Amino acid sequence: MSNVSLNDDKVNDANVFSVEGTSGTARAGLLKTRRGVIETPVFMPVGTLGTVKALTPEELKEVGATIILGNTYHLYLRPGCDVVELFGGLHDFMNWDGPILTDSGGFQVFSLAKLTKITEEGALFQSHLDGSSHMLTPEKSIQIQQSLGADIIMCLDECVEYPADRNRVEQALDRTRLWGDRCKAALDTDSGSLLFGIIQGGMYADLRRKSADMLLETDFPGYAIGGLSVGEPKELMYSMAEATLAMLPDDRPKYIMGVGTPEDLVELAGLGADMFDCVMPTRNARNGQLFTHAGTINISNAVHRTAKEPVDEKCECYTCRNYSRAYLRHLYMSREILAYRLNTIHNVYYYVNLMKDLRKAVMQGRYSEFRSNFHAGLEQ
Amino acid sequence: MSNVSLNDDKVNDANVFSVEGTSGTARAGLLKTRRGVIETPVFMPVGTLGTVKALTPEELKEVGATIILGNTYHLYLRPGCDVVELFGGLHDFMNWDGPILTDSGGFQVFSLAKLTKITEEGALFQSHLDGSSHMLTPEKSIQIQQSLGADIIMCLDECVEYPADRNRVEQALDRTRLWGDRCKAALDTDSGSLLFGIIQGGMYADLRRKSADMLLETDFPGYAIGGLSVGEPKELMYSMAEATLAMLPDDRPKYIMGVGTPEDLVELAGLGADMFDCVMPTRNARNGQLFTHAGTINISNAVHRTAKEPVDEKCECYTCRNYSRAYLRHLYMSREILAYRLNTIHNVYYYVNLMKDLRKAVMQGRYSEFRSNFHAGLEQ
Repeated sequence: MSNVSLNDDKVNDANVFSVEGTSGTARAGLLKTRRGVIETPVFMPVGTLGTVKALTPEELKEVGATIILGNTYHLYLRPGCDVVELFGGLHDFMNWDGPILTDSGGFQVFSLAKLTKITEEGALFQSHLDGSSHMLTPEKSIQIQQSLGADIIMCLDECVEYPADRNRVEQALDRTRLWGDRCKAALDTDSGSLLFGIIQGGMYADLRRKSADMLLETDFPGYAIGGLSVGEPKELMYSMAEATLAMLPDDRPKYIMGVGTPEDLVELAGLGADMFDCVMPTRNARNGQLFTHAGTINISNAVHRTAKEPVDEKCECYTCRNYSRAYLRHLYMSREILAYRLNTIHNVYYYVNLMKDLRKAVMQGRYSEFRSNFHAGLEQ
Repeated sequence: MSNVSLNDDKVNDANVFSVEGTSGTARAGLLKTRRGVIETPVFMPVGTLGTVKALTPEELKEVGATIILGNTYHLYLRPGCDVVELFGGLHDFMNWDGPILTDSGGFQVFSLAKLTKITEEGALFQSHLDGSSHMLTPEKSIQIQQSLGADIIMCLDECVEYPADRNRVEQALDRTRLWGDRCKAALDTDSGSLLFGIIQGGMYADLRRKSADMLLETDFPGYAIGGLSVGEPKELMYSMAEATLAMLPDDRPKYIMGVGTPEDLVELAGLGADMFDCVMPTRNARNGQLFTHAGTINISNAVHRTAKEPVDEKCECYTCRNYSRAYLRHLYMSREILAYRLNTIHNVYYYVNLMKDLRKAVMQGRYSEFRSNFHAGLEQ
């Protein structure tokens, strides 16, 4: 693997993001990272443990993925930073030379690990694997993410559950701001990595405003909206996203974390979101649920036993070009590894290309038409 | 996929196999099937359920596989012949356009299913999946294999366990001969499929002779040796193979079924065997055991945690060209699907190319040198 010459196109905050076209509130943008320019809106497949589950890097490129996620919490525990550092970072370790965004590890500490104690200093937690104790501080999170070689790095934030009362949310906000400042201070600015701030505030619009104001004051090259799709009603999620997106400066990329269904992506991109990640296409693929232009199907359904047609007649992915629903059902019912592969290729292709198609529509000023056609397809 | 025009290069028994070179008793041959010519000695990866576990057809081609196996018993039960027939056979169903060899189903009926009753008519058994009752006769076996569209079809034989007493083996022999004749009678000779007879006889050289004589009388375009590597000592296996191989006509391909380790393949090809199949490279890959020119390694071993080198420095497979032992170990310890894929690619590449390299050596009259070098590598 060749080393990427990271300094040649070093980016600074001012020229990180540009809007190339708009259609209503939807935007088509370009996000510059040290490992290449990303067209937005973009869907970023989740590569939890240094692999987007079931796929090779070549397959990720073939489905059109331009940037992937790595999970700091998981990689810190397995294989451990010392191993990844031997390879100069995650890119060489996993053989992916495109941009990587890592999360802060906070979400998993709050949701997957056993959280022992949270203080201003950081979060003390026990590993979900072996119960070992670890302390995650803002500085530690940045250090890990930089040792992973991430191109986009997320600030450590305190996540709150839903529903959460106002005091709890406000307290988490203040801590998130403080941690955000410490993350920025801890960043090696020579690395060329972009550090994104995360807006919290639960389902309180005024607290989202407060969070946004605080983070804008610190000034980040990009902003994420956290704490959505955590159990709240869909309409509340959309209205909270809409309000928060409007609070963020239009010359910065806006990333909605951990969301969502294809409908969510179309809706939220329409409201001005630029970046998305979600385990849904990969996880659901492994559960036999496949996304199509006419809605989702479950490949285990007996109706597919003798179905010669592909998953989606309109899809150009490797799976749809070469295999029938009947074959995919057979593989899935037999728990063959190839089932998870072919299903994942299809679902990730669907998500990635949904955003590519939406971007084209935005560039042509046709977002509304795109959205109508998308919904008409689902209602077939 | 386009339909293969099977009649254009229709083969008949007389020109099925030719010996292109020899080195001692080792042979380099060409085996003509209706879907292409196969260079022998050849290793045939096992595709039990219409997929060589974890791999796509493209990957099989990339590792050099020229012919794969399908398991009649498994495919008959799942997805069922009616499904495969909708696609005109296994090739289009699974998207593999090279030759396919199917077994008779007998081995699984005797080893995996619950055998209810065996008579001259056939074997009554209960499915290992749902306990349903089925009758496998010679005619049924041929009918299933032809509906699967196999290019090489195996006669139904009666397998005996090891150790087995002489009477038991002899009885099975007679039945195998009778079933062989019925298989030949049941074959659609216009199909272009090649029907191979199977020599049994346990560990009794004179019964192997008797079996060979009976099958030679029936006359098949190729012969397999069954009932080896069933628990007998290695030296007994080699001597039984050597004796039986010598009984078979040199103008017919000689296939040793279900064997074995890389050492076994090198040894048996040296004794004149042309074709091999075994689940070892695929199954062991999924258990973390990888074959190298210096012997086997287990990728889960802690010594590989920080190992930057590939599995095998001398290997040109996709896995070795792109990934370290450390990454493979990490994937394997995390039970990532990509672990099984990358391990399988390596092991199948190793087996397939071991036979390709051996063939080259035979063509140059250097089998003994090849064998010495092979063993010297293992003893490093």
